Amino acid sequence: MQSKTLKVGIVGGTGYTGVELLRLLALHPNIELTAITSRGEAGMPVADMFPNLRGYVGLNFIDPAQADLGSCDVVFFATPNGIAMQQTRALLDKGVRVIDLAADFRIQDIAEWEKWYGMTHACPDLVAQAVYGLPELNREQIRTAQLVANPGCYPTAVQLGFLPLLEAGLVDVDHLIADAKSGVSGAGRKAEVHTLFAEAGDNFKAYGVGGHRHLPEISQGLARMSGKAVGLTFVPHLTPLIRGIHATLYARLDKQADLQALFEQRYDNEQFVDVLPKGAHPETRSVRGSNQCRIAVHQPQGGDTVVVLSVIDNLVKGAAGQAIQNMNIMFDLPEKTGLEIMPLLP
Amino acid sequence: MQSKTLKVGIVGGTGYTGVELLRLLALHPNIELTAITSRGEAGMPVADMFPNLRGYVGLNFIDPAQADLGSCDVVFFATPNGIAMQQTRALLDKGVRVIDLAADFRIQDIAEWEKWYGMTHACPDLVAQAVYGLPELNREQIRTAQLVANPGCYPTAVQLGFLPLLEAGLVDVDHLIADAKSGVSGAGRKAEVHTLFAEAGDNFKAYGVGGHRHLPEISQGLARMSGKAVGLTFVPHLTPLIRGIHATLYARLDKQADLQALFEQRYDNEQFVDVLPKGAHPETRSVRGSNQCRIAVHQPQGGDTVVVLSVIDNLVKGAAGQAIQNMNIMFDLPEKTGLEIMPLLP
Amino acid sequence: MQSKTLKVGIVGGTGYTGVELLRLLALHPNIELTAITSRGEAGMPVADMFPNLRGYVGLNFIDPAQADLGSCDVVFFATPNGIAMQQTRALLDKGVRVIDLAADFRIQDIAEWEKWYGMTHACPDLVAQAVYGLPELNREQIRTAQLVANPGCYPTAVQLGFLPLLEAGLVDVDHLIADAKSGVSGAGRKAEVHTLFAEAGDNFKAYGVGGHRHLPEISQGLARMSGKAVGLTFVPHLTPLIRGIHATLYARLDKQADLQALFEQRYDNEQFVDVLPKGAHPETRSVRGSNQCRIAVHQPQGGDTVVVLSVIDNLVKGAAGQAIQNMNIMFDLPEKTGLEIMPLLP
Amino acid sequence: MQSKTLKVGIVGGTGYTGVELLRLLALHPNIELTAITSRGEAGMPVADMFPNLRGYVGLNFIDPAQADLGSCDVVFFATPNGIAMQQTRALLDKGVRVIDLAADFRIQDIAEWEKWYGMTHACPDLVAQAVYGLPELNREQIRTAQLVANPGCYPTAVQLGFLPLLEAGLVDVDHLIADAKSGVSGAGRKAEVHTLFAEAGDNFKAYGVGGHRHLPEISQGLARMSGKAVGLTFVPHLTPLIRGIHATLYARLDKQADLQALFEQRYDNEQFVDVLPKGAHPETRSVRGSNQCRIAVHQPQGGDTVVVLSVIDNLVKGAAGQAIQNMNIMFDLPEKTGLEIMPLLP
Repeated sequence: MQSKTLKVGIVGGTGYTGVELLRLLALHPNIELTAITSRGEAGMPVADMFPNLRGYVGLNFIDPAQADLGSCDVVFFATPNGIAMQQTRALLDKGVRVIDLAADFRIQDIAEWEKWYGMTHACPDLVAQAVYGLPELNREQIRTAQLVANPGCYPTAVQLGFLPLLEAGLVDVDHLIADAKSGVSGAGRKAEVHTLFAEAGDNFKAYGVGGHRHLPEISQGLARMSGKAVGLTFVPHLTPLIRGIHATLYARLDKQADLQALFEQRYDNEQFVDVLPKGAHPETRSVRGSNQCRIAVHQPQGGDTVVVLSVIDNLVKGAAGQAIQNMNIMFDLPEKTGLEIMPLLP
Repeated sequence: MQSKTLKVGIVGGTGYTGVELLRLLALHPNIELTAITSRGEAGMPVADMFPNLRGYVGLNFIDPAQADLGSCDVVFFATPNGIAMQQTRALLDKGVRVIDLAADFRIQDIAEWEKWYGMTHACPDLVAQAVYGLPELNREQIRTAQLVANPGCYPTAVQLGFLPLLEAGLVDVDHLIADAKSGVSGAGRKAEVHTLFAEAGDNFKAYGVGGHRHLPEISQGLARMSGKAVGLTFVPHLTPLIRGIHATLYARLDKQADLQALFEQRYDNEQFVDVLPKGAHPETRSVRGSNQCRIAVHQPQGGDTVVVLSVIDNLVKGAAGQAIQNMNIMFDLPEKTGLEIMPLLP
Repeated sequence: MQSKTLKVGIVGGTGYTGVELLRLLALHPNIELTAITSRGEAGMPVADMFPNLRGYVGLNFIDPAQADLGSCDVVFFATPNGIAMQQTRALLDKGVRVIDLAADFRIQDIAEWEKWYGMTHACPDLVAQAVYGLPELNREQIRTAQLVANPGCYPTAVQLGFLPLLEAGLVDVDHLIADAKSGVSGAGRKAEVHTLFAEAGDNFKAYGVGGHRHLPEISQGLARMSGKAVGLTFVPHLTPLIRGIHATLYARLDKQADLQALFEQRYDNEQFVDVLPKGAHPETRSVRGSNQCRIAVHQPQGGDTVVVLSVIDNLVKGAAGQAIQNMNIMFDLPEKTGLEIMPLLP
Repeated sequence: MQSKTLKVGIVGGTGYTGVELLRLLALHPNIELTAITSRGEAGMPVADMFPNLRGYVGLNFIDPAQADLGSCDVVFFATPNGIAMQQTRALLDKGVRVIDLAADFRIQDIAEWEKWYGMTHACPDLVAQAVYGLPELNREQIRTAQLVANPGCYPTAVQLGFLPLLEAGLVDVDHLIADAKSGVSGAGRKAEVHTLFAEAGDNFKAYGVGGHRHLPEISQGLARMSGKAVGLTFVPHLTPLIRGIHATLYARLDKQADLQALFEQRYDNEQFVDVLPKGAHPETRSVRGSNQCRIAVHQPQGGDTVVVLSVIDNLVKGAAGQAIQNMNIMFDLPEKTGLEIMPLLP
């Protein structure tokens, strides 16, 4: 394996998913980082913007027009929504495989996508051929995919939590509830008032209860798992963490089953999903900086409501780490390559 | 009103509810603070332990045995569970009215209380005569109560959020869900590892999913509102806030109604419950340091799941502020006296 | 006193000093809030932007052109630097007294001001007549001032800490050191990347070591106290607090003296400066939300280096609270009016 | 190199330096973790206490009496002060090399140590033979040391910042100032009130201004560098970070020199000291989770006061990482082995 070296490009490297890709790729033994583009910061050393990379990443940001992305084996888009769909076809035509960390290729129903994202889709045909990059669900299709739609952060935590229940057909899928809490880095590295330290610190709030862009993505995934449309109430919250998502999931049980065994068996072979012992409560810090998802399943007071607790690092398993996991699968590398990272605790 | 001066005692003043009572009472125009007891810290100036009180509170902690609590008009217990039940009868016998901020008198079913609190109750008869001090529900009984059981923090946020729906009989009471998030001060000023800054900071977790002491208290309250037993799934979470509770409540609607109008009407005359405009999301910081509860009601995608968002400061409306609100009612003072505090934002 | 009612206007109310003025003025018994202006948010209810004010502040932001500021007794400028100097003369001409919370009138040396603030000063003559609003230094001049330059946040903490030493002529003024740490609200409510929660949270850094705008303001003040020019090294740091400044001050003692007595005597009559007992360490939270400055003086190992610790809430004693203190002095109200606020702890 | 495998033991693994040793050693290619002891938690799986280790560390804590530490190549003491000095001789006698992360062997002047640590030293002769484990100062002695005294966190940050200045003899060593700020994990994983989230969060304070245990350790090191006794004022502060130390150092220049060049040359060959470009300000997060120390040197306004900014992660370069760096040196492994960790940002 040590002889394989992939040429990797990153489009749009100035956000948190960009720096996280760099943090992880810098120590990945099988890649060579070819180019990282930024329209606004072309010429600036990457490590000037992200001082954690000093000594590890010597590249400068390069203008997209100058970047030779066509010679890469794989290109990651760490761009705002709506950029990847403009540039992906040209790369695919040159044989470059593409992993989009934004939402451009995640939703198969184009009208639905256009409603939530407020723009006309540039390439519906590519959406149809894109593979949704949740390895625990779609590993085989990912292997051969030319274009991977990397899942959103909330969708990753929520789907992995519901997956065993829906596949087993145990719950009322018309009334699923996902109460999800995200750290502030989920809002990105954008100059905005509501995510200032003095606004988001020592504060907790729900947002987007009327509708959030991750709702259709999650619903689409849950429908695939259960084989029919689902009814989902999704309430995201902003919590004063830097990193981390905690999804608390509720469903009504239609039948009884050994839920602990169900979850353990479903994820038995998954390297990045860790089912905790019965009665446990996963903490977001237990996955901080790593690609792990940790899950616990509860049935309070033995009633008919099942509660699933699912935590990820939104920037790793919820973004850059999962993208690299997908890359590893696509290029037949061991799935953990470059992702053997111990979570940082405390 | 300005001529009325109540003699006030506090038993157990070294915890967060104690210092919070002092912060609020120090500027209350109708009280005279007679004594604040602490077995462990007797003799220490209160302001040495709590430097925010310097210049406002000149008292020293006094040993309970030395304190002349019998001459007070009202005594607050800011003690661990199980203390107030030992001392309340003697005070009541002397005509002192008692407000217990702990859980000793909150649950009418003694067996249930003993199960959750792990001790034998010292005075079941006093439980029967205690009034549950949620003013929005029990204002008239509080006026004449000799003994008030001040509600817990989670129970305050959850009950105020469900109240209009249950009184109106609009929802399936067998499957209520309360997903609640609390700041760390809710755990008290106790030397424990799991609430250290390095443990609870930058971290989010659920706890007590299998069962939490506030569950029976909330269930009892919700049952009163709806006139029948309820089924409640209650999941508390620890979030890196100092103060604040955010309860996200879910219920299945049995009938349709104008929920916004329902909530606004129910709380129209309440000075400490603020129903936000349609579509709003209350933030915990919007009530920081104040006795307000702010509530918003949502019906996502027009479906049959209602979502209520309810925020309080756990140490004020969830503890000391509500206790003073109860005192004001008991002694026929304007309910806002000493509680006109602007929340601190940012 | 209770009959006096001042008409108050605020120019520029959408920043943190604006909301803080509102928080404090809303409960001030001697003022009537006439207008609060905002060019960008005209028409929006103030409480929509700052939900803590709901129920207390019913005003809408008003366009400056529509605001009848000329009929006010006093107008506060809570604007970016460079605005107040454009509008102050017209107000003064109408007999309105002005308190500028920005830096326009703080520095008497116009060339120095223009160098640090990067603009031409619009009214040097008004600078000459402005009174620097540090009551502990200039109380008498403030009483009759038409125009008050409210001190900056760092300058307040640093000057109050050095004041007794410099007035007494005890230290080498050529080598003063002020190592100051500020909460993030000091950077204002501006959409910027470096003050995002995900940037400033769990992070600590110095900034502006080469030169910070508060350096000339502090140096000017210290020179007045000592009667000669001073040499100051000022290093500000950003710390993950919302509110609070902690200044750690170092000076070389030229003579010995009872420093504890010196500080206690100098501030004996000051209501908002609290000298802590010998050996104490003030905490920023002990002044959170209040107009207090707390100070401790140390002489480690009995050597010739004196260390002064000085804490304030940057938005209160460092901005809005001190502005109201100045207003109270200017209008012959008791200095504490509207400022009897218990710090919020925890 | 890959064939070398060291047998490693850890005494006292339940604190933050213990879990940090485990986090780093778990991925170290040349070690085999033999035993980790804890008197109180014997039998508990290590990963139950520290969930970040799940899947990487399969060991249980073992009672010290049961642990076969004598067969180890190297034993780390991650114990409270006063433990290692009881057990080290027996290990050394068996040929085991010892690295003590506590303070037992750091101070050569036994009387001084006993004064600050409040106990009688058990083995002054071993102190005399111990090597102070600051590789940038003592690399050659560390290579052959049987017993390494791993430096404290503050001492590491402060000494690395002053080192080039003192070796070059450029500053007045009688009046050095170290204003240091530490994250809360520096206080350890101990159940104490003052480090609770609700106490240390949103708060900033100095402590130990009258005297701190790290003062004699730093003074001893600075004296070695400068060849004579130094006068140091050391003021530590607690800041609401989980990890990180920021030392701001002040000294009076006796002669002029190119300070930037001096620092760059001194640390040119050091893999874990990064001198930032002129004018830069290091951030604690830029080293979070890594063994880096980043340093910047400033001469504000070109005056005679030099300001050095030095940041480390207190648990890595300030404790466990430096201990492993020492182990690598002692066993002739490449110094970076197991320490190639990208700092976590954001």
